[in-house]
Amino acid sequence: RGIRVGYTPDVLTDATAELSVALLLAVCRRLPEAVEQVKNGGWTTWKPLWMCGYGLSDSTVGIIGLGRIGQAVARRLKPFGVKKFLYTGSGPKPESAEEFGAEFVPLTRLAEESDFVVVTCALTPATQGMCNKDFFGRMKKTSVFINTSRGAVVNQEDLYDALAHGQIAAAGLDVTTPEPLPADHPLLSLRNCVVLPHIGSATYATRSTMAVLAANNLLAGLRGEPMPHELLL
Amino acid sequence: RGIRVGYTPDVLTDATAELSVALLLAVCRRLPEAVEQVKNGGWTTWKPLWMCGYGLSDSTVGIIGLGRIGQAVARRLKPFGVKKFLYTGSGPKPESAEEFGAEFVPLTRLAEESDFVVVTCALTPATQGMCNKDFFGRMKKTSVFINTSRGAVVNQEDLYDALAHGQIAAAGLDVTTPEPLPADHPLLSLRNCVVLPHIGSATYATRSTMAVLAANNLLAGLRGEPMPHELLL
Repeated sequence: RGIRVGYTPDVLTDATAELSVALLLAVCRRLPEAVEQVKNGGWTTWKPLWMCGYGLSDSTVGIIGLGRIGQAVARRLKPFGVKKFLYTGSGPKPESAEEFGAEFVPLTRLAEESDFVVVTCALTPATQGMCNKDFFGRMKKTSVFINTSRGAVVNQEDLYDALAHGQIAAAGLDVTTPEPLPADHPLLSLRNCVVLPHIGSATYATRSTMAVLAANNLLAGLRGEPMPHELLL
Repeated sequence: RGIRVGYTPDVLTDATAELSVALLLAVCRRLPEAVEQVKNGGWTTWKPLWMCGYGLSDSTVGIIGLGRIGQAVARRLKPFGVKKFLYTGSGPKPESAEEFGAEFVPLTRLAEESDFVVVTCALTPATQGMCNKDFFGRMKKTSVFINTSRGAVVNQEDLYDALAHGQIAAAGLDVTTPEPLPADHPLLSLRNCVVLPHIGSATYATRSTMAVLAANNLLAGLRGEPMPHELLL
């Protein structure tokens, strides 16, 4: 009480959507593995299926949480030849769902039909642990799972089992539980799991914009004026 | 003479454009470095500029060779918020140059003004060694260079110098001279250079389509019939 709080809304949508697509592409086209093969001498003569991955052409992409970031992800993925967007979530129907021809489906159907699942929802009591054994068990063996929202949306033990037993093809995580993830965590031992250190908003431009917004909030607060972006508590 | 040759045209445009964007995003958002930081314990507390990269929002992208693959790259990059596309090359004006608002410029201006340079041209006597000391010297210190065409378009010694001395920010190569690149090549010692083992067309769907086309060419040839896709020598 008496403590005023400023925040920096909307400034990381583009950077986070960009990172989500970067991670999806890196996982489905196996970039970290491929980089490693070049460095350790695994790159030899041409072989028909060596380092092959799953492309986005003609795929079905399921987005969990088609909010600002989810819509920005869909807009970026569409020209890669995505055939169909599915989405699920609790909010009102997104304005741009028509732009992508996105179809609202239950979570179970999204898991069953998607070639790529991208999680961009908020962490709430309803979404905590939502991606669990049942969810991964419904996904296809050839499907890829990407989470750039919050680590606790995923049951990490269930994800480890799904990846280790080939129930799903691969996963990319920009968020984990806890953060930082310990360097000896089992997920980091898997060839088909790519973990990033929560760099969704990590561009120079975005961090600079965030810093300026925060500074302006602070200066207004010190002057006793309304902040440009103030949380009303 | 008397030897008939089949080929498999047009089938790798989508996969190669997808890989080009995947590599560009991995380089500009520093994914291989970030993955390494997670594995070696470099991920600790939050720091404002740690692992920051350069995003595509409001950027200028220069495409060398706006042919089938170059146009497919531009189409995929556009929704990331690219402000301006530049291109150069020797062919006729691409039909879709208007679609992207792409402006034809000389190679020198493309180098000077682009935040991202993507090379998707053919290797010809005119393009061999085209990306050299002069070219990299004109690029901005914050710019990123991507080559998914042929290794010999780039003078690798000049690229090494530009990367090692901070003349450009980073590079991503899916093609090199020679291939495979020796594991002890100097380019592989650089933090800001990502080298892939020529996986542009490496998706299961593309390689399968290529195999079917090749088999149908072969069967037609064995029957003494015209091949579905035959090089006229």
